Amino acid sequence: MLNESVSAAVDSEMKGLISDLQTLIRQPSISSKKQGLNECASLVSQIMSKAGIKSEVLNLDGYEKNQKKEPIAPIVYGEVRSKKNPNAKTILFYHHYDVQPEEPVEFWHADPFSGNVEGNYIYGRGSADDKGELITRIKAVEYFLKTTGDVPCNVKFIVEGEEEIGSVNIEKYLFKYKQKFAADAVIWEFGYVDEKNRPIISLGMKGLLYVELVARGPSRDVHSSLAVLIENPAWRLVQALNTIRSTNGKILIKDWYKEVRDFTSDELDLISKEPFDEQEFKRQYDVDKFVNDAREIEARKAIVGMPTCNIAGLIAGYRGEGAKTVLPSTAMAKIDFRLVPDMDPKIQLERLINHLKKYGFGADIEIKFIHGEAAARTTIDQPFVKQVADSSAETFGTKPIIMVSSSGTGPMHSFVKMLGGPCVSVGSTYTYARTHSPNEFARIDLLNKATKCIAAIIEKFDKPMHTV
Amino acid sequence: MLNESVSAAVDSEMKGLISDLQTLIRQPSISSKKQGLNECASLVSQIMSKAGIKSEVLNLDGYEKNQKKEPIAPIVYGEVRSKKNPNAKTILFYHHYDVQPEEPVEFWHADPFSGNVEGNYIYGRGSADDKGELITRIKAVEYFLKTTGDVPCNVKFIVEGEEEIGSVNIEKYLFKYKQKFAADAVIWEFGYVDEKNRPIISLGMKGLLYVELVARGPSRDVHSSLAVLIENPAWRLVQALNTIRSTNGKILIKDWYKEVRDFTSDELDLISKEPFDEQEFKRQYDVDKFVNDAREIEARKAIVGMPTCNIAGLIAGYRGEGAKTVLPSTAMAKIDFRLVPDMDPKIQLERLINHLKKYGFGADIEIKFIHGEAAARTTIDQPFVKQVADSSAETFGTKPIIMVSSSGTGPMHSFVKMLGGPCVSVGSTYTYARTHSPNEFARIDLLNKATKCIAAIIEKFDKPMHTV
Repeated sequence: MLNESVSAAVDSEMKGLISDLQTLIRQPSISSKKQGLNECASLVSQIMSKAGIKSEVLNLDGYEKNQKKEPIAPIVYGEVRSKKNPNAKTILFYHHYDVQPEEPVEFWHADPFSGNVEGNYIYGRGSADDKGELITRIKAVEYFLKTTGDVPCNVKFIVEGEEEIGSVNIEKYLFKYKQKFAADAVIWEFGYVDEKNRPIISLGMKGLLYVELVARGPSRDVHSSLAVLIENPAWRLVQALNTIRSTNGKILIKDWYKEVRDFTSDELDLISKEPFDEQEFKRQYDVDKFVNDAREIEARKAIVGMPTCNIAGLIAGYRGEGAKTVLPSTAMAKIDFRLVPDMDPKIQLERLINHLKKYGFGADIEIKFIHGEAAARTTIDQPFVKQVADSSAETFGTKPIIMVSSSGTGPMHSFVKMLGGPCVSVGSTYTYARTHSPNEFARIDLLNKATKCIAAIIEKFDKPMHTV
Repeated sequence: MLNESVSAAVDSEMKGLISDLQTLIRQPSISSKKQGLNECASLVSQIMSKAGIKSEVLNLDGYEKNQKKEPIAPIVYGEVRSKKNPNAKTILFYHHYDVQPEEPVEFWHADPFSGNVEGNYIYGRGSADDKGELITRIKAVEYFLKTTGDVPCNVKFIVEGEEEIGSVNIEKYLFKYKQKFAADAVIWEFGYVDEKNRPIISLGMKGLLYVELVARGPSRDVHSSLAVLIENPAWRLVQALNTIRSTNGKILIKDWYKEVRDFTSDELDLISKEPFDEQEFKRQYDVDKFVNDAREIEARKAIVGMPTCNIAGLIAGYRGEGAKTVLPSTAMAKIDFRLVPDMDPKIQLERLINHLKKYGFGADIEIKFIHGEAAARTTIDQPFVKQVADSSAETFGTKPIIMVSSSGTGPMHSFVKMLGGPCVSVGSTYTYARTHSPNEFARIDLLNKATKCIAAIIEKFDKPMHTV
């Protein structure tokens, strides 16, 4: 069980945790707009230093600019070595200080970067994803140092600034600082807590292929009376999109599912135990049925292992108030495909390109590759998984749910490939915390429990495992 | 032939014409944004007064607000009665002082409201549509008054402020001021001049049905990982759109073409004589083939008489730079259907509603009616048509082209229905003047010729017709 004085410090110091989280929320740090990234990295580094964590801001020498000649966001690295146990194993916390854009602004009840506290909630873009999670891990280390003067195992932090645009440079950082980052296990940047306050431990993430389809028509926007003769690129885009996905969600691109494997019996066992509350989920999002009318086990299998094709954005022509009769010069769709283990983003992109060619859209629809990332899964039999599960059970006061994979995407594959260790997701984010949406929030009770949970994981990490 | 002193005044006073046109362009007057409308109406009235035209700004008492409680744009009315011939016939010039929105601003080479003159071109939103046309008609009257002290027939002006949002209140104005507006013939607000400097006289306009299709999904934007279960309204919209129009442009809604009549032999004769330059048209818009691969006479018939379904706007989800993985709460398409004679916008709307219901989109896609307007055509055998054609031939120095109908839409049907007279379109707008597009311009040589042409029409209007 977690050291009592550390646990007491978490409770007595919540004001300091909230105040530091507000400081982070109030610094917008939007990677897709290159807004406030250096400023936020600097703040994270200061908060780490204040906590007693040796911190530095790392850059990619020789890679200072991306393809658009924009600077690459720095990584904040943090480290504390155990004094009494300098040869201890090392746990690595992976995080990001960047956030999603705040749009659509009109649906926020207050400034998206307010950090306002209302009762048990703290609001703002990044409050949950990922500044709230980050602060719980920094604080867990801080309170160990404060109350015991040491940490039970070595601890490292990687806090990147490009997660929300697909962690486009994380592999380069992992490669360049391979020795500095070496660790025995990774705690992932977020973890969910369900509507019954049960922590969800997730062992994997889906992959992602993000593209823009840009249909081109006449050389400029023209009066829509010319639609009698000039083909509208928005129509071409609609026609192309319609060939990609069936009305029940199946992706119609040849060989799309070729490498997708069936679930193992271990995985199916975990999936069947997941207490998925279909009615609550539908109520939260105000939908009355699921894609392909999936129910019960089929819905749960979809979350864990179904590839998707999602329209993340549509842009063409006049988007203001009222009527403008225009035939647009271009039309664009932003598409994200979620991938599952054994699907290679590069191969899937080729398949998409061939598909559009085959259907006659090769000449007038350009496919812009934005990002690709493979899926990753840690197997249930790793001892680290049990340590995390036990820590969660003790600190949240309820048995955790273990999930085969999150439905989301992150660069877990890069970590698993580069570091070789197990990688587990556990944390403080309420399932309906509106991440990526207006009025994102973190729950203060869960920030408290998650801080204790992380402290317990640190405490257990270097101890010999009990036999199960 | 046009009075020589009037003709000379047009040439010697071009600077004044350009300066007044610049004044109008530099006052943005965007009806869809309710921007600068009263200001522009006031400017038009001042320019008329300066020209010797008795002018007043009219409102719709009892209709001051539209359904959204926004004020209705005023109409500028102008009138000059012939002194020597007070019982003369009356010609009415219909115009609008409102313009299309300037977006997309990034493609303009200069401020969209600059009114910059470069050689033979004057640039700016509204330079052609419709402020350039309006100024030629005011100036034609002004120069008659200046050089002869009178006008050969009675002249009236109606300059409305809501043409670009579908002339939503013009019928109410025509009804309210029926006696004031009474006229024997109408010159329409614009007329084109082709790439060989031939004036195009058009005898009709297409109708329009403008709707917004709003697809609704989850109660808020959600993380796109949930696309495994939650249907994306952008997909529903794409699927719905795809049921409406075939890849070759045919509208697939039941009975859509039911009332469409064949061309008369007179109409077919005119259409076959239209010197449509297919290659130049394609070059101008940088397209290599037309919808349904139409060529020659088929392309010309399409311009005059083909109903269309055009996507004027698509809006869903994230529209900024880079990757945002979001599943949007709503997705919207702005659609304009062009209609031809005998199609009733209300009936066509019902057919669209029934179509979407039949295909299963009734529950999650809302159809918002924005505007409806019927088509209109004046027949070739009206004497007024010959007067306009003769005036054009004399002043442009080349035989005009007579078109059965423009491919565009305007409230011509309301005028024909209310006033009962012939209605003809003739004017100063170069075919490729980029109306509704960035870098819209008017050609100064054509403003000059069109002013003379309008003066010639005024001169001929009350004279007995020669037998043909």
